[in-house]
Amino acid sequence: MTSDDMPHRALLPAGLADLLPPDAAREAALVEAMLAVFAAHGYERVKPPLLEFEDSLLAGSGAAVAEQTFRLMDPVSQRMMGLRADTTPQVARIAATRLANVARPLRLSYAGQVLRVRGTPIASERQMPQAGIELIGAATAMADAEVALLGVEALAAVGVTDVALDVLMPTMTPALLDAARVVPPLRQKLARALDRKDAADVAALAAEAGAPALTALLAAAGPADGALAALNAADLPPAARAIADNAAAVIAAIRARAPGLRITLDPVEFRGFTYHTGVAFTLYGPGGELARGGRYLSGEEPATGLTLYPDAVLRMAAPAAPAPRLFLAPGQDGAAHRAAGFVTVAALSAADTPRSLRCTHILHGQTPAPIED
Amino acid sequence: MTSDDMPHRALLPAGLADLLPPDAAREAALVEAMLAVFAAHGYERVKPPLLEFEDSLLAGSGAAVAEQTFRLMDPVSQRMMGLRADTTPQVARIAATRLANVARPLRLSYAGQVLRVRGTPIASERQMPQAGIELIGAATAMADAEVALLGVEALAAVGVTDVALDVLMPTMTPALLDAARVVPPLRQKLARALDRKDAADVAALAAEAGAPALTALLAAAGPADGALAALNAADLPPAARAIADNAAAVIAAIRARAPGLRITLDPVEFRGFTYHTGVAFTLYGPGGELARGGRYLSGEEPATGLTLYPDAVLRMAAPAAPAPRLFLAPGQDGAAHRAAGFVTVAALSAADTPRSLRCTHILHGQTPAPIED
Repeated sequence: MTSDDMPHRALLPAGLADLLPPDAAREAALVEAMLAVFAAHGYERVKPPLLEFEDSLLAGSGAAVAEQTFRLMDPVSQRMMGLRADTTPQVARIAATRLANVARPLRLSYAGQVLRVRGTPIASERQMPQAGIELIGAATAMADAEVALLGVEALAAVGVTDVALDVLMPTMTPALLDAARVVPPLRQKLARALDRKDAADVAALAAEAGAPALTALLAAAGPADGALAALNAADLPPAARAIADNAAAVIAAIRARAPGLRITLDPVEFRGFTYHTGVAFTLYGPGGELARGGRYLSGEEPATGLTLYPDAVLRMAAPAAPAPRLFLAPGQDGAAHRAAGFVTVAALSAADTPRSLRCTHILHGQTPAPIED
Repeated sequence: MTSDDMPHRALLPAGLADLLPPDAAREAALVEAMLAVFAAHGYERVKPPLLEFEDSLLAGSGAAVAEQTFRLMDPVSQRMMGLRADTTPQVARIAATRLANVARPLRLSYAGQVLRVRGTPIASERQMPQAGIELIGAATAMADAEVALLGVEALAAVGVTDVALDVLMPTMTPALLDAARVVPPLRQKLARALDRKDAADVAALAAEAGAPALTALLAAAGPADGALAALNAADLPPAARAIADNAAAVIAAIRARAPGLRITLDPVEFRGFTYHTGVAFTLYGPGGELARGGRYLSGEEPATGLTLYPDAVLRMAAPAAPAPRLFLAPGQDGAAHRAAGFVTVAALSAADTPRSLRCTHILHGQTPAPIED
C-alpha cells in the first residue's frame, strides 16, 4: 500500500503515529507469536486496564515512570487516574490482590500499549507497545535465567535470531559506594563519571572515594567470560561479592541452557534500572535494544520480568511475503481460495477492477491464475 | 486459575477492570481470529494511536462520542488531545490523509481499546475492546452486504453461530418527519414515542403530524420478509421510498450470499445511530448485542463499517479446553513437548512441585504421563 506520508504529519501530536498496512498487521502478528511462546512456558495472560488510580499505578516500580504518566481526573470518583506508562506495576497489583491466593511462583504475561508524557532525546515515541512476562515469587538464579531466555526464544519465534544479552548489576555501584561510605557530592560525581564511562575520571574519583574496585569493574565490562574472571579477581566488600556471585550464577544458568548465546556483562552500569534489586538484562539486536528486564520486588515478593518492545522488534523482523490477492467478480465465491491462503477481494461495482483492487490473481474457471503485467 | 475477586474491586475505578487468566488470552485469540477473517477478505489493518488532537478525533462521526471522550492537555503542543472513545473517526482520518492516494474502495480493519468518560445504565464498562472494519469509497448495496456478512463470518470463526442481523434505517424517521414538515415540539414528542415503541402514542401523534406512515412502519418491525412486504405496501413520500428500496436491496444482497441468516428489520428505530446516512446493522447473539455498524460518511466519502465487541463475544464464545500442563524437573527439556501442544512449567527450586505449579502431566522418561489424583 502506498502512502502519502509527509504532508499530514502535523495532524497527530508529536510522538504519536499511525501504523499503516502492512506494519499494523505485522506488529500484531509478532506480538501474538511472542505471547504464544510465553504461554507455552506456562505464562498466563492478564489484561489490566489502560487507566487506573494513580496511587496504585505509581506504587512500587511505577514510581520510576511517575513523571512520565499522563494524569486524568475520574469524574465518577473525583480521584486522579493515570494512563499507564508501564505495565509491570499493574501486574504487581493483580498478583498481590486478585491472584494473591494462587500458588507461587506465578507466571504472568501481558501485551498492550503504554503512553508517556514526553519522548526522550533518543526516542520521540509517546505511545509504545509492550509485550512482557513477570515471574513472581521465585528468587533463584534459575528464575532470572528462564526470563532472559524466554526473551531470546520469543525473538527467535519472530525471526530475530542475531541477539545479544547484556547482563547488568544495577545494585553493584551503590553497594560499593555504601561500603566505602561515599556521600554526596563525591557520590554524584562518581555516578556521573560512571554513566559517561569516563575511565580516567572514575579512576581519580574512585581512589578519592576509597572504592578502587569501581575502576576494575568499569574496565571489566565486555564479553561475559572475561568480565566474570575480572569480577572474580576483584577485591570486593561482602555485599558487592554477593552481587557478583549472584550474577555469575545467573549467567551459568543461562549458559547451561543456551551455550551459544552471546552474553556481555556490564558490572557498573545502572542507568535506567532504578527499581531493580538484582541482575538486570537488556536484549540487543543489530538495530538496537529489543527488550529490558530484571529482578525487582513485586509488592513484597521477589520477582523477575522482561518487557519486549514490539515496535523495535518490528523494525528488525524480516517482512513476511504478502499473501496473493484474488479478484472476485460478482457471483464468484472465494471461500475455498481463502482456505487455500488467498486474500480475496470482491468487486462491488463495475468500477472495481483487478488492478484497482491491487489483485495479483483472477479466476480462470475455478482456478486462480496470476495476472500478467 | 482461582481468583480472589470481591475484596479488591475498589482498587480500580468504576467501569475499569482487569481481565484475568484464561479470559485475557481468550479475548486476544478471538480478536486475532476475527481480524484474520477480515484480512482474508482484503481488509488491511491499521493501528491509530490511543491519543490524538481532539479536533481530528471528534470530527465527522467522532462528534457522536464527544461527550464521552476523556480530554488531556498535550504538554508538547499545548493543544487538547482526546483519548479515543471510538476508532472509526481515526480510520476516516487515515483514509483521508495518509491513504488518500490509494485506489478506492479502501478496505481497512482495526482492533484496540476505547475509553469512555462514563458508563451507561446498561453497561458500566469505561474501557472496551473494539475490532472492526471500514469499507470506504463504495456506495453500493453489495458493500453494505459485504460488511454485514463479514461480521457474521467473523463471529462464526470464533464459534458464535447463533446470530441474528437486525437491519435499521435510521434516516427513515427523519425523512418522514421532514416530508410532513413536522417541527418541534411535536417532532420531539414523536421521536420519544417511537423510541418507546408506544404504538398508541405514535398513532395519535403521527396522525396529528400528518405522517401516518410512521404508524405502519412501527408495526412493520420484525422478520425481514414480512417487514419488507409492509414497507413495500406503505404509502411513502419519495425520499422515504428511496430509503426503503435501498434497504430492500441490501437485504436482497445479503440473502443472496447467506440464505439461512436470520434477518429482522426495524424501519423506524434510530436511537444510537446518530451519524448514519443509510442502512445500519446490529448483530445479536443469544446474550445480546455483538456488533453494530452501517453506512456513514468517512470525511466526504461514502463508507460502511462494522464494530464488533470482543468483550461481548468473549461472554458468548465457548471456552477452549485448557492445554495440558507438563511439569519439568531441573534439567528436563520441554521443547519437543511444547511443539506437541503441551504447556511446560519448569521447577525453579525444590519447593516447586507438579501440584504447586498446577500441572496435569509429568515426564516418565521422555513421555508425558497424566498425574493421578
